[in-house]
Amino acid sequence: MVRIVEVGPRDGLQNEQVPLDTRLKAAFVAALAEAGLREIEVTSFVSPKWVPQLADSGDLWPLLAPGPLFSALVPNAKGLERALEVGVDRIAVFTAASDAFTTKNVNMTVAETIEVFAEVIAGFRARYPGGWVRGYVSTAFECPYAGRIEPAQTAEVAARLLELGVDEVSLGDTIGVAAPPEVRALAAELDGPKDRFAWHFHDTRGTAVANVAAALDLGFTAFDASAAGLGGCPYAVGAGGNLATEDLVYLLERWGLRTGVSLAALARASLPVLEALGRRPTSKAQLAALSAP
Amino acid sequence: MVRIVEVGPRDGLQNEQVPLDTRLKAAFVAALAEAGLREIEVTSFVSPKWVPQLADSGDLWPLLAPGPLFSALVPNAKGLERALEVGVDRIAVFTAASDAFTTKNVNMTVAETIEVFAEVIAGFRARYPGGWVRGYVSTAFECPYAGRIEPAQTAEVAARLLELGVDEVSLGDTIGVAAPPEVRALAAELDGPKDRFAWHFHDTRGTAVANVAAALDLGFTAFDASAAGLGGCPYAVGAGGNLATEDLVYLLERWGLRTGVSLAALARASLPVLEALGRRPTSKAQLAALSAP
Repeated sequence: MVRIVEVGPRDGLQNEQVPLDTRLKAAFVAALAEAGLREIEVTSFVSPKWVPQLADSGDLWPLLAPGPLFSALVPNAKGLERALEVGVDRIAVFTAASDAFTTKNVNMTVAETIEVFAEVIAGFRARYPGGWVRGYVSTAFECPYAGRIEPAQTAEVAARLLELGVDEVSLGDTIGVAAPPEVRALAAELDGPKDRFAWHFHDTRGTAVANVAAALDLGFTAFDASAAGLGGCPYAVGAGGNLATEDLVYLLERWGLRTGVSLAALARASLPVLEALGRRPTSKAQLAALSAP
Repeated sequence: MVRIVEVGPRDGLQNEQVPLDTRLKAAFVAALAEAGLREIEVTSFVSPKWVPQLADSGDLWPLLAPGPLFSALVPNAKGLERALEVGVDRIAVFTAASDAFTTKNVNMTVAETIEVFAEVIAGFRARYPGGWVRGYVSTAFECPYAGRIEPAQTAEVAARLLELGVDEVSLGDTIGVAAPPEVRALAAELDGPKDRFAWHFHDTRGTAVANVAAALDLGFTAFDASAAGLGGCPYAVGAGGNLATEDLVYLLERWGLRTGVSLAALARASLPVLEALGRRPTSKAQLAALSAP
């Protein structure tokens, strides 16, 4: 069973400057769910000062209709407090494989971010014993400030997150540079069962689908993607979009793996958001699905 | 050593309705050569009635500056005559794995197209003994009219082309549908050394780079691509562009394979053509290269 973790509403929108209406976001999430996506990272309880687009997370969460597994990014104790207030019961925390990256972004070393997580996770599990936690490791292959990252370095950060009790580590090619040999090199260093890892590829240079294929060949089964390829990394120069969920779904279905997602419905799900942002679809599989008779 | 066969000037332009100046095409080819591409399929000596865009092939060929290996598509004896008149010394012929496809396009069965090739190749080799000939097999995975194609069927057509004396068979995912497992399935059926085959992927649904990666993993080393992803199949509904050469070069270089191509120069090489066609770049690696500081 392959899992798709849809991150469009959070990772896809966080860096967009055009303010989107909370109801539009809720409708986007509902359309994604209707298309068959079962895991959706909906928003972030990060400081509204840093990510104004997601300042409405506390208002958005109560608008979600039951069905899929919804989660939210929670950066610290304050964010956790806000998340718990509205009933968030699946959370994600994020760090990186590179001190240069975390220092630039959150003014903490990787080790320091992990200390913060320990606190967040403890607080979360006090409220939801055994509650699901995902840990992101950004710049898993390369850092825009520190260059290439050794696979062992990324694997070590992943191992520390697992020790801390996260249920899943999502390994992010934040600036979208990796090629399949790097996926294999990192996979070889990972410690733990394959189903404890998800892959979060960006398609900045066209390699995301190939990287998914490489991970599938190795037996990994969880992949992040963003409808219409919305998003990218707000801090990384030249970083384009996430892997488009449409491209991922097409690959998986053609591979013979069932996703439960309707590509036709998914291709339309992001159209109102794209329109509000003044963007046109760019995902190849989305365009093909939209132009299909 | 990995080979890139640049097909932008021919496959990329053949279906474009906006007439392009012959000197613009010559400058495009020169820019591709300058970027480091060593094999370029420049034009087609097909009937101007069928492909008006390439009606100037006889005028274009003499404008090419020596350097790369240039080739041209030659569909029949009449085309060969025109090609030989201007000194074409590397040719390509094309058929498909599906009778439905060749019948619809050239009103011949696959077997009948191969009879025509025998004549073309004989005429060509009478002029250039041992002259290089490439054979295309379109719809290698799926036909827009007949559906999925059995790997054995495609492999059989490829084998007949090799028997006929072509130097290389290029296997085309004409409508851009294939995923890596299909590449592996077809590869398993192919008869002959791996260096007798090139792969010609279309990126209509975002799988082309992944398919290249799968073929690389199997030891294949020749890939077709079109600068800026220009082109597609003129006869296939919903078919988007070819694999962009930029995306291919990025993958290969990041893989650690040397291409000899400057991605920065390549990313710019197609800009005048795109401008003339009223198009914007869509290749991810091209966009990334163009936006690099």
